Amino acid sequence: MQEELINRVMKEVMSRLTPSAPAGKAAKPQSSGSPSAPADLVQLTEFVGAGMGDTQGIVIANLDPIIHKLMGFDPKYRSIGVIGGRVGAGPQLMAADEAIKATNTEVLCIEMPRDTKGQAGHGNLIIFGAEDVSDARRAVEVTLEMLPKYFGDVYANDQGYTENQYSARASKVLSYALKIPEGRAFGLILGAPAVIGMLMIDTAVKAADVEVLGFASPARGTSLTNEVFIWVTGDSGAVRQAVIAGREVGNKLLSAWGEPPKSLGTPYI
Amino acid sequence: MQEELINRVMKEVMSRLTPSAPAGKAAKPQSSGSPSAPADLVQLTEFVGAGMGDTQGIVIANLDPIIHKLMGFDPKYRSIGVIGGRVGAGPQLMAADEAIKATNTEVLCIEMPRDTKGQAGHGNLIIFGAEDVSDARRAVEVTLEMLPKYFGDVYANDQGYTENQYSARASKVLSYALKIPEGRAFGLILGAPAVIGMLMIDTAVKAADVEVLGFASPARGTSLTNEVFIWVTGDSGAVRQAVIAGREVGNKLLSAWGEPPKSLGTPYI
Amino acid sequence: MQEELINRVMKEVMSRLTPSAPAGKAAKPQSSGSPSAPADLVQLTEFVGAGMGDTQGIVIANLDPIIHKLMGFDPKYRSIGVIGGRVGAGPQLMAADEAIKATNTEVLCIEMPRDTKGQAGHGNLIIFGAEDVSDARRAVEVTLEMLPKYFGDVYANDQGYTENQYSARASKVLSYALKIPEGRAFGLILGAPAVIGMLMIDTAVKAADVEVLGFASPARGTSLTNEVFIWVTGDSGAVRQAVIAGREVGNKLLSAWGEPPKSLGTPYI
Repeated sequence: MQEELINRVMKEVMSRLTPSAPAGKAAKPQSSGSPSAPADLVQLTEFVGAGMGDTQGIVIANLDPIIHKLMGFDPKYRSIGVIGGRVGAGPQLMAADEAIKATNTEVLCIEMPRDTKGQAGHGNLIIFGAEDVSDARRAVEVTLEMLPKYFGDVYANDQGYTENQYSARASKVLSYALKIPEGRAFGLILGAPAVIGMLMIDTAVKAADVEVLGFASPARGTSLTNEVFIWVTGDSGAVRQAVIAGREVGNKLLSAWGEPPKSLGTPYI
Repeated sequence: MQEELINRVMKEVMSRLTPSAPAGKAAKPQSSGSPSAPADLVQLTEFVGAGMGDTQGIVIANLDPIIHKLMGFDPKYRSIGVIGGRVGAGPQLMAADEAIKATNTEVLCIEMPRDTKGQAGHGNLIIFGAEDVSDARRAVEVTLEMLPKYFGDVYANDQGYTENQYSARASKVLSYALKIPEGRAFGLILGAPAVIGMLMIDTAVKAADVEVLGFASPARGTSLTNEVFIWVTGDSGAVRQAVIAGREVGNKLLSAWGEPPKSLGTPYI
Repeated sequence: MQEELINRVMKEVMSRLTPSAPAGKAAKPQSSGSPSAPADLVQLTEFVGAGMGDTQGIVIANLDPIIHKLMGFDPKYRSIGVIGGRVGAGPQLMAADEAIKATNTEVLCIEMPRDTKGQAGHGNLIIFGAEDVSDARRAVEVTLEMLPKYFGDVYANDQGYTENQYSARASKVLSYALKIPEGRAFGLILGAPAVIGMLMIDTAVKAADVEVLGFASPARGTSLTNEVFIWVTGDSGAVRQAVIAGREVGNKLLSAWGEPPKSLGTPYI
């Protein structure tokens, strides 16, 4: 009898509250590995899928020349694929970088709003250009499919997160967004809030002999986010080691707020 | 007995939680059409009222010359009316545009913080100048009264929103904020997050023969919001058609996150 | 029996919800006056403590020269102390200003992200430099210890806040961040959302004969926050009077949204 009572109360409570999902939860995969969405609700040929990080992907087969001109796109890219999300920028960039390796597409636009749904970071808008719509669609599909991997080394709690990314070979998206020379190893060492990032970047450069390619902080190179990060290149083993060292110390500091940060996916580094 | 128990528990639970209202809910009208506030709590002659979008309106009869100078206001505007809100910018601009048509006031300042209470958009600060305090007050009152109309074609769910605005004849506020020629038709086609806006603007310019006056995106012309939008002019029928076409496709895309977006008021377009 | 049942339900409800703490609550002291954290979770020599406003303090004894160079720090400051938080900038600046008076440290960096966990304001990153690690550590400790004082005249409700600060004698942090001449009285009059600040600053300059040193608004001098504020100097009695006058009117306006704003600590002005 008591169980039934508790269940009734719980149901009532939950229905009255309907809280909006916290960033961490929202970022969880809606299915394991492949994008998904309530297909009966979205009957648009342009809709490709939805994925982790409140990310959505669409394709426009014949972009209107007015929009080409407004956004400064080369008109030869008749078709575009668009990735946009509320939570995160790094995972989407990493996933898009994989997608561009796998398809005949180019990066036309990358912009990073101040977002993460009230949390400390960015959202994202990434636009692929293609001469053929099937290429644009495939780039979007691959990006959405790769998101769970690249959320795997994002660790978050209620106060912040560490974001750790590694690639043995950067491609055009990372080159466009962060001026990484194509083909070189890439590591991202990022902590939010900014105080977490400060210790991470110092620890990372002490841990391995890497070359720092860039630095960003609330007032420098971010969209006013509460983050500090560096990105590095060098020997791929050293890059990986620097990223891991930053991650370990960052996750420990985040625990100072009481809750150990959890991976949003399956760690890959 | 069980009902009483459930009620006791619910009361206790709700009192312990006191969650802050989500943007969508907060944006709902506090009364139908006219501004309201707990009058017994606010005993200030400057307070005019509160309205949708967590918006508040005040009037200052004799602005101090120090503030005139700090903010660069013409001293002849002894009185100012101020509109400020957490959620939205477009509805407040549209409503203020009506207010300036109806009163002897001028626009002194329009600024758009990154806000919407953790959601993807802007907040707002709009300042009217008047030689007579009654004009400033009236402009604020009209703005607050018109807000429910202009939230009517804002559709939101937990992930984002589409904002659709239309005016047959733009006035000084729209001219000041968006460089619309006064007296011409005006349409706003806006989606958040940015991926939603991309499809909306392409669909809108394909749907009707309109002239695009401006474009904004996370890194161009917004306060780093997660939005993409255009504003257009042209034949008023064509403008309306473009706005409606954008709205339909944007609301469908938003549904990809599982929940159909709902109008925050009563649609007027 | 009923009590036990209620407790069981409450426990279940709370565990299922684990809502992220609202800004107001998160800003409450975790202990009265001294920084604290789950020490068993944070076994890092760099970790100093956590305090109000979701603030954390760390120390790095030997900052890597690569980071010195990246951030433009004078290499003579081998050690740094770092304060970083999600909620607030003024209280952290005031507390750091006290800390720098009490220690042999310098300000190396102050940056203000757009944060406050979805609310209207800033977060913060403040870096002290020292030749000796014990100085850097002490500066961080003092800052964390002083936070409850300087959150004392921050009053918040679900919609916004007023922030009121006063110092008889500004030191290096305020001088660095806001160009206050060292040694002079300092007053901050700040309201969020911006509409609240507008009435506060006008009221403050009318209430006392003070000199306005600076002005900030969503588009001028903030990180796009929904705030309006001024900072003032002059006779210390006049400065205090101006701050109090702004505070009174700001708190009344905030009440227009239904809930009287509450001090986040113990008022000191």
